[in-house]
Amino acid sequence: MITKLENGSVTSPQGFKGGAASCNVKGIEKDDGKLDVSIVLSDSDCTAAGVFTTSQFVAPPVTIDQETLAKNNDTIRGVITNSGNANAATGAIGLENAKQMLVATAEACGGSAGQYLVMSTGVIGVQLPMERIAKGIVGAANDLGSSDAHGLRASQGIMTTDTFVKMSAVEVQLSGGAVRIGGMSKGAGMIHPNMATMLGVVTTDGAIAPDLIKEMMKDAADVSFNRISVDGDTSTNDTVLLLANGASGIEISRSNQTDYELFKTALIQVCTELAQLIVRDGEGATKFAEIVVSGAKSKTDAHQIANTIATSPLVKTALAGSDANWGRVMAAAGRAGVPFDQYATTLKIGNDGESWLALTESGLPADYLEDDAAAIFAKTDIHIWLDLAQGDAAETVWTCDLTHGYVTINADYRT
Amino acid sequence: MITKLENGSVTSPQGFKGGAASCNVKGIEKDDGKLDVSIVLSDSDCTAAGVFTTSQFVAPPVTIDQETLAKNNDTIRGVITNSGNANAATGAIGLENAKQMLVATAEACGGSAGQYLVMSTGVIGVQLPMERIAKGIVGAANDLGSSDAHGLRASQGIMTTDTFVKMSAVEVQLSGGAVRIGGMSKGAGMIHPNMATMLGVVTTDGAIAPDLIKEMMKDAADVSFNRISVDGDTSTNDTVLLLANGASGIEISRSNQTDYELFKTALIQVCTELAQLIVRDGEGATKFAEIVVSGAKSKTDAHQIANTIATSPLVKTALAGSDANWGRVMAAAGRAGVPFDQYATTLKIGNDGESWLALTESGLPADYLEDDAAAIFAKTDIHIWLDLAQGDAAETVWTCDLTHGYVTINADYRT
Repeated sequence: MITKLENGSVTSPQGFKGGAASCNVKGIEKDDGKLDVSIVLSDSDCTAAGVFTTSQFVAPPVTIDQETLAKNNDTIRGVITNSGNANAATGAIGLENAKQMLVATAEACGGSAGQYLVMSTGVIGVQLPMERIAKGIVGAANDLGSSDAHGLRASQGIMTTDTFVKMSAVEVQLSGGAVRIGGMSKGAGMIHPNMATMLGVVTTDGAIAPDLIKEMMKDAADVSFNRISVDGDTSTNDTVLLLANGASGIEISRSNQTDYELFKTALIQVCTELAQLIVRDGEGATKFAEIVVSGAKSKTDAHQIANTIATSPLVKTALAGSDANWGRVMAAAGRAGVPFDQYATTLKIGNDGESWLALTESGLPADYLEDDAAAIFAKTDIHIWLDLAQGDAAETVWTCDLTHGYVTINADYRT
Repeated sequence: MITKLENGSVTSPQGFKGGAASCNVKGIEKDDGKLDVSIVLSDSDCTAAGVFTTSQFVAPPVTIDQETLAKNNDTIRGVITNSGNANAATGAIGLENAKQMLVATAEACGGSAGQYLVMSTGVIGVQLPMERIAKGIVGAANDLGSSDAHGLRASQGIMTTDTFVKMSAVEVQLSGGAVRIGGMSKGAGMIHPNMATMLGVVTTDGAIAPDLIKEMMKDAADVSFNRISVDGDTSTNDTVLLLANGASGIEISRSNQTDYELFKTALIQVCTELAQLIVRDGEGATKFAEIVVSGAKSKTDAHQIANTIATSPLVKTALAGSDANWGRVMAAAGRAGVPFDQYATTLKIGNDGESWLALTESGLPADYLEDDAAAIFAKTDIHIWLDLAQGDAAETVWTCDLTHGYVTINADYRT
């Protein structure tokens, strides 16, 4: 059984602490006191894994974490994150500064620099203000605690232009007892010169072997964080980390397949909520859409088509306008680069993923009332289901609408 | 020497006539008299070639033209086009209606149905009003003439939500005498349920062998129509056709390489102008941007990166906001799926493609004044040049900005 932990976050699993501090990373004249340094710390060593941006313009913190995890993914103690500056396009100095953040965190929290991971989000092309950051790290370390309030503060510390804090936690009953999974994420902010950086930290007090945790992180990210699209742009800093400290005394392994599957389901639930919250907080977003493509010959095909629909400006403006424009969905699917028979396709829409209205059948307009379609598109949550009838593979992606608010945030802002 | 023919269009080459008529294809209650049937007719047989949408949701007229040109590309007489209805998502009836349009055109203009090509643009999922279309074809045939005014009317007949007519024509002096190339295009319109259909017809009185014209059409389209992006969406009906009637008595062939290259340059000039006019008339567009990616390992790589920059909503809103946001350009380039060394790249901007301001060097922010960058981005025509320093290949694409106007047109419209 999986139980949602209200107000839970990275500190919900046993043996994890969170803390944050404000050190004016952005260096704004009138310091707004925003929490901009965040620490997640485990009382004991963790196994850990991460998924990272595939951008060619990769930021120094990403490079460092990849190197750290390649050398050591079983004695990780925690994660240090700053918001307000992405430490991206910063070259050799940026690399050195990211390393300094690890050294300062180890000094403040214990252990060695190689036992910590680092994330940054915010302005790019500007060097970190290391003096202020050092103070922020000490402040966040002094703030550490295991309450929900500490988890909340740690989650607030990684926000940039996010309009709400993104947290999720569950308790899952396994045969040997209860294990907890908690997490925080941030996204949304694409105001210049920020990127749409997606950051996430997921913690668990289950024990997971070093090899298995890599696989679990990848599998969970594939069906959650890798299924969201705000505007098709990905960042220099995208990072999601998973830390398992084993404090529950319960090991997750394939030797107990039932427990293993249940834990994985719970992990995916937390990651999915953290990912969907990012979409719901997309810049200017007023609608949340689930795009399902089924009947494809392969999962890759299904994902490619779903993603093309999800990133189509015409589809996204149709969502904004509450216009059940099936022509735009079909046109996006048609240009995804995946061959299929247009006259075998069916397109349906709905609001709950259970009851559906067919807009097209056999590739031709179905017999439906415009008012019924408009009523579905007028709601906040919209489900779009395209069946190709070419095979058995299906994929889902989540997206938001493209609104005047998006243009205002991203075009009307001046450097 | 290539001379631009002011007000020239498809009728500028010798032996071509144009005509149009209004037959209320859309069936609107209060007929607005918009020209919606357009004919381009040659006095004599033409060789012909076409480039077509690669969408899986391909409209019947596209299927028919592809079949026609496969059987016969040396006795083509003309092109019949209707606007106001795309004859897309119309199935077997749509195919039959497209064939009927060819039959009616042959009856009105001479020759056989198999000697004509057909294009449609407008509403999708609605069958053509064949009775009215038939009258429109007779009307357009009665309107045929070879003056610039007739070329203008033929060009107006293919417009949908285009805000201005798109025409281009040149005369090119070859060793044996003058040859003319003329063309018309339409784009822009993506108002529901229209797609961003791109149509084009290019005529020439040069004589081009059936095999050569296919190659010429493809080569010219690759560096013109295939280099534009309004919003990344492509249509069910995209079609560009090239007809050569040889009325000048001058043959274009590889046996005279100088003439061949000169003619090709002129053809590319006409196609490029027709393509760029589509971008300039993009929905809500206020800016025109040329994106050049150089120093790539292959042309495919360069095109992939340039296209990812050109379709990035963050880059396009930065253009709209006159915000010289190099971070967004680099982030788009970085996620294009092409490996390169970020610290070898240089990003420059300008207004004329000749003088440049470097925003980044070796992947790091260059020493420039924000005011200078802002002044460049404040102009209507913006050039963005990313050099990868990985190889010798370069590609160019043209795009426009993403504005409130785009959202208004595409979201605020209700079915």
